[in-house]
Amino acid sequence: MNKTKVALLGAGFIADIHLESFLRFVPEAEVVAVYTRSREKAEAFARRHQIARWFTDLEQAIAESGCDVVDICLPNFLHHRAVMAAAKAGKHVIIEKPLSLTLEEADEMIAACQAARRKLMYAEELCFAPKYERVRRLANEGAFGSIYMLKQAEKHSGPHTDWFYDINQSGGGVIMDMGCHGLAWFRWMLGGRPRAVSVLAHMQTGLIHKGRTRGEENSVVIVEFEGGAIGIVENSWAKHGGMDDSAEVHGTGGVCYADLFQGNAALTYSEQGYGYAMEKAGSTKGWTFTIFEEAFNQGYPQELKHFIECVRENKEPVVTGEDGRAVLELIYAAYRSAGTGQKVTLPFHAKVSKPIDLWLGG
Amino acid sequence: MNKTKVALLGAGFIADIHLESFLRFVPEAEVVAVYTRSREKAEAFARRHQIARWFTDLEQAIAESGCDVVDICLPNFLHHRAVMAAAKAGKHVIIEKPLSLTLEEADEMIAACQAARRKLMYAEELCFAPKYERVRRLANEGAFGSIYMLKQAEKHSGPHTDWFYDINQSGGGVIMDMGCHGLAWFRWMLGGRPRAVSVLAHMQTGLIHKGRTRGEENSVVIVEFEGGAIGIVENSWAKHGGMDDSAEVHGTGGVCYADLFQGNAALTYSEQGYGYAMEKAGSTKGWTFTIFEEAFNQGYPQELKHFIECVRENKEPVVTGEDGRAVLELIYAAYRSAGTGQKVTLPFHAKVSKPIDLWLGG
Amino acid sequence: MNKTKVALLGAGFIADIHLESFLRFVPEAEVVAVYTRSREKAEAFARRHQIARWFTDLEQAIAESGCDVVDICLPNFLHHRAVMAAAKAGKHVIIEKPLSLTLEEADEMIAACQAARRKLMYAEELCFAPKYERVRRLANEGAFGSIYMLKQAEKHSGPHTDWFYDINQSGGGVIMDMGCHGLAWFRWMLGGRPRAVSVLAHMQTGLIHKGRTRGEENSVVIVEFEGGAIGIVENSWAKHGGMDDSAEVHGTGGVCYADLFQGNAALTYSEQGYGYAMEKAGSTKGWTFTIFEEAFNQGYPQELKHFIECVRENKEPVVTGEDGRAVLELIYAAYRSAGTGQKVTLPFHAKVSKPIDLWLGG
Amino acid sequence: MNKTKVALLGAGFIADIHLESFLRFVPEAEVVAVYTRSREKAEAFARRHQIARWFTDLEQAIAESGCDVVDICLPNFLHHRAVMAAAKAGKHVIIEKPLSLTLEEADEMIAACQAARRKLMYAEELCFAPKYERVRRLANEGAFGSIYMLKQAEKHSGPHTDWFYDINQSGGGVIMDMGCHGLAWFRWMLGGRPRAVSVLAHMQTGLIHKGRTRGEENSVVIVEFEGGAIGIVENSWAKHGGMDDSAEVHGTGGVCYADLFQGNAALTYSEQGYGYAMEKAGSTKGWTFTIFEEAFNQGYPQELKHFIECVRENKEPVVTGEDGRAVLELIYAAYRSAGTGQKVTLPFHAKVSKPIDLWLGG
Repeated sequence: MNKTKVALLGAGFIADIHLESFLRFVPEAEVVAVYTRSREKAEAFARRHQIARWFTDLEQAIAESGCDVVDICLPNFLHHRAVMAAAKAGKHVIIEKPLSLTLEEADEMIAACQAARRKLMYAEELCFAPKYERVRRLANEGAFGSIYMLKQAEKHSGPHTDWFYDINQSGGGVIMDMGCHGLAWFRWMLGGRPRAVSVLAHMQTGLIHKGRTRGEENSVVIVEFEGGAIGIVENSWAKHGGMDDSAEVHGTGGVCYADLFQGNAALTYSEQGYGYAMEKAGSTKGWTFTIFEEAFNQGYPQELKHFIECVRENKEPVVTGEDGRAVLELIYAAYRSAGTGQKVTLPFHAKVSKPIDLWLGG
Repeated sequence: MNKTKVALLGAGFIADIHLESFLRFVPEAEVVAVYTRSREKAEAFARRHQIARWFTDLEQAIAESGCDVVDICLPNFLHHRAVMAAAKAGKHVIIEKPLSLTLEEADEMIAACQAARRKLMYAEELCFAPKYERVRRLANEGAFGSIYMLKQAEKHSGPHTDWFYDINQSGGGVIMDMGCHGLAWFRWMLGGRPRAVSVLAHMQTGLIHKGRTRGEENSVVIVEFEGGAIGIVENSWAKHGGMDDSAEVHGTGGVCYADLFQGNAALTYSEQGYGYAMEKAGSTKGWTFTIFEEAFNQGYPQELKHFIECVRENKEPVVTGEDGRAVLELIYAAYRSAGTGQKVTLPFHAKVSKPIDLWLGG
Repeated sequence: MNKTKVALLGAGFIADIHLESFLRFVPEAEVVAVYTRSREKAEAFARRHQIARWFTDLEQAIAESGCDVVDICLPNFLHHRAVMAAAKAGKHVIIEKPLSLTLEEADEMIAACQAARRKLMYAEELCFAPKYERVRRLANEGAFGSIYMLKQAEKHSGPHTDWFYDINQSGGGVIMDMGCHGLAWFRWMLGGRPRAVSVLAHMQTGLIHKGRTRGEENSVVIVEFEGGAIGIVENSWAKHGGMDDSAEVHGTGGVCYADLFQGNAALTYSEQGYGYAMEKAGSTKGWTFTIFEEAFNQGYPQELKHFIECVRENKEPVVTGEDGRAVLELIYAAYRSAGTGQKVTLPFHAKVSKPIDLWLGG
Repeated sequence: MNKTKVALLGAGFIADIHLESFLRFVPEAEVVAVYTRSREKAEAFARRHQIARWFTDLEQAIAESGCDVVDICLPNFLHHRAVMAAAKAGKHVIIEKPLSLTLEEADEMIAACQAARRKLMYAEELCFAPKYERVRRLANEGAFGSIYMLKQAEKHSGPHTDWFYDINQSGGGVIMDMGCHGLAWFRWMLGGRPRAVSVLAHMQTGLIHKGRTRGEENSVVIVEFEGGAIGIVENSWAKHGGMDDSAEVHGTGGVCYADLFQGNAALTYSEQGYGYAMEKAGSTKGWTFTIFEEAFNQGYPQELKHFIECVRENKEPVVTGEDGRAVLELIYAAYRSAGTGQKVTLPFHAKVSKPIDLWLGG
């Protein structure tokens, strides 16, 4: 079996998860190179994971690594540059959320990949998380009748890395970080490409990261889709006690509650604590919710396996650049709604250098 | 001990709960009369509960029963008339939610009781539900730091009685029925009389009661309070599987989840089913959440005991007519927001014959 | 209403709970006196709870307090003396678990109360805990078909008071402290007075209280009843993280899980901690299970109200001295089984100065 | 990559799970043949799963399929014959639980594989279930201090296939079916090969399968290990409402609760039901616990991947024939204890034609 060659761009938290996923669950792919700015980090990452080559130049990593696929795990503000370079070099692309900082960037990225006849997958792992996928199939079996409300929440106590607190690098706060997941999941649950008709949002800042970020730390966004179903997405960077990732489906014939972290965990009490409970768990003394197979249960291996299969068998990914763009449009609308206190109707477009300007007034 | 005499107005679901609460937990009170329109129902209720007298005339029940206190468990559209009659007769009043159909009615009711120097308690049992009260005391102990978000949900599959589906009798849908609880609880959690600055709302109808009601069947309302804390209240008449009543507190120093029904229940699997699991549970075959001490855990006895104590010891109730009016104002604003898609700032007033007109356009 | 006068013997943890229960939920009773050995503690307890009289002499407290009822919340080794004195003085008796140290004592206590024509209630609060009572009624409704297995567990990290670690004062370890609850509950669930046919037991010591007690710290006891149903009771003094009190019913037609503490709690995460979560909870920083209405949910007020009603209306208590004796017989058999590794058949009797001698070889 | 060739013996429930596991998670192996007695079933299974060859003769399947590995998913009474044939043919063996009907068979099977220098893995998937493995690593990290009690339960409403109800084919009831899992898990948790010193057991029959089986339908077994730690395993074929597979770890420094099914599930309410909730769930109307990735969460793919790796890299499996024999010895002792009402000390041996004879008196 000839393996599909992957260049991994980025060497942070999410790159680690992608790498573990490839190694354990996607034998038909091989990570042949890693890129990160720092020479020491690049070299260490490559050595630790036995990756053949490492780069500190983005374009070089793409063009010279001999890869078929570029896997982008970079800070948001580098997404556009990396995709454009990959398209130019004729590489398939899978890219972490959010797709880009602006809708203009998104349009260029999609167009470039199309022009190069290369696949562009938007790596929304919630479309592959096995518990959520089971729930989606339940919905498709008719278990809940007609869906009138979806809810999704992702919450923790703030990003791992500094750049996300700088809105110029991230484009915004917790919605840019985690809200994009719920918004993509609503679309996936409602058949993949439902038409959104309006967005209402409320945002808060200055909660536990005052002085560190101007991004929103807590948000609630209500999206109305054609036909009347709504999605409510709640996100927080101000929630202590470990990561929350949970979803609800409300239909005329039933209801479903799915919780990926606390809802899968072993319940532990330890006098002296232990190594790791879950993302952002804080202390492990006392009661904790101990999770397992974190990457698998969030859908990362399944997502990557799917994309490698798309590349190898020339199939269309279930989540594409267009989906990533649609999510970004909802984020634009959410910031605008938070800024004006009004429902924003879709399609929505505004010319800004980053989404959060629509709330903060740029 | 001379007992405080109570006339119970109404003989439906909630009247039963009040009566059980008085009998088991408030020995210092005695229900001396019951009123309901139907002679048969009145007589049967009185006989079943060994109440000395029954009436089919509202004003007579108030004036001639020899009561000290009038306990109003009537359909919404009768609230104003009953309170006005009680005030005129010099009786103390405890009244079920919502306070009234209109803000004008509310103002008259409050003024009449004040003029008569009689107490008017707004019977918000969530201020007395022991699990929620424990959570409130935690908050006051500083367990959560500064509260930035409260959530409360009440959901089931629709009211027990027909009149609630008729918006002319009820004034609206699920918000008039259950949303008022969460709105009152937010105020209670934030110190009793916080200033609300704005309301955002989204509502849905035609879900599982299409043709039966024009009231909203599902709603989400976001209230922003002075200082920036928000309350999100979710309500539904389209949620199968039994009553949901749950709350969350999110603060800069912690978080808390409290669930009054599923969260207190015994988990039961029965092949052949049994009598009663919880409110609106539907079938009791298969898995069910079996609750216990339903009235106590919702705070009804504690609420009634508190009011009787207020009457006997001339204290101020913790929830008054003014609180009921403030909740109604939030409901007005919610309907207006749902109608316009815009954030509504408070104080808000509009002249309508019932709150839902602000959404449906009267 | 003339109140039934109660003398409370004991001023420790459980006496506090009884007192709170009387005050809040049993208006027809009045605690008129408290006894405890220490003058300072007696006086302080009486002052704190506004009890008219306090005593430091046991027999005097019974004979001179003017009480109708003696409520015994004393260390195990004083149970016999207190009941004999109460019977002699013509008082009704309610007594905390376990009934006594030996079967001989139990027989004398029962005989003395019978001779004096006074009621002797064995205060097994699990027969009154509302969640467990709901489960029992479910069983009686036939929800589970024929019951073939009951399970009950009580676990925490060890008693509040020193005397319980001294087996000469307590008679044994965790079974004497908490196992008696589950054993009594099995009998109650199976109709009150089922015939037990055999007992199997395993015990462990030296876990977290090594050097402090010779009593068993962890135990599992299997009781077989006539007809084949079994009860498995698990108890521990070596379980961190707060009190566990939970039960299961397994029948040919269904199953039920009921948890009094974690299963009723609000789930809390606090960065800085707070006052009190639940019995033996340890630190309240991080995740905790916050309980509420602790006494009510364990059935103390209901139990005391029942006994006062029995006294006032001359009814038979649902749990009597005979039930307490039957539980003690099961405890004897459990220690013998742990000592011999053999199933012990009932009825069982052996002459020992305390139950645990049957295991440790006294 | 040359693939390791596997002959799958059996085409029932568990064979399906193994096959799915190989296909999705063990790309280094290939199932090249399937055996089952019935020609139609064999052919259909092979066609459905695109397996190259099918056999209706056991020895032929082993000898002529060209396999490297024999994967035994057969009824218990065929285990010995299949392993002996595999060893004779020089094949590596992985075998489903229980290892065999008798200790004599077990000894022969182990000796035969050793003589043939072939690996014999005892397929205890609980040693690979990711939630349980996380818990084991927690224990090894010292999170619970010194372990003094383990608990494990597997329960459902009875086997899929008829042969298991016939004790001559199965060797016993629910302990032979599911008890073996918990017993193996205790050993794994305590370091792999702890010395067991005694066994106490109680068994019940005639619950919901009266007339259908003489095997025990409900059982509790207490195993004491050297050093004093105990394991309590509970098993049932009389538990409605879907599969239960749960474990507890009790240590001097903490406690842990892990539940593989309800504890991982999405909580669903459906008016009209849906296809599949979990093993033995019964109806899917009303409330159900919907599971996902059933094979993965029970550890089947991980177990098979591990064995293929052992074969390819000549490593020792973590669970071997000796472990399977040790579990069978505990089962012997459990039946003897149930038969005599006495603690049985280990090592234990008795000459019987099937384990349950030690209880029923063969």
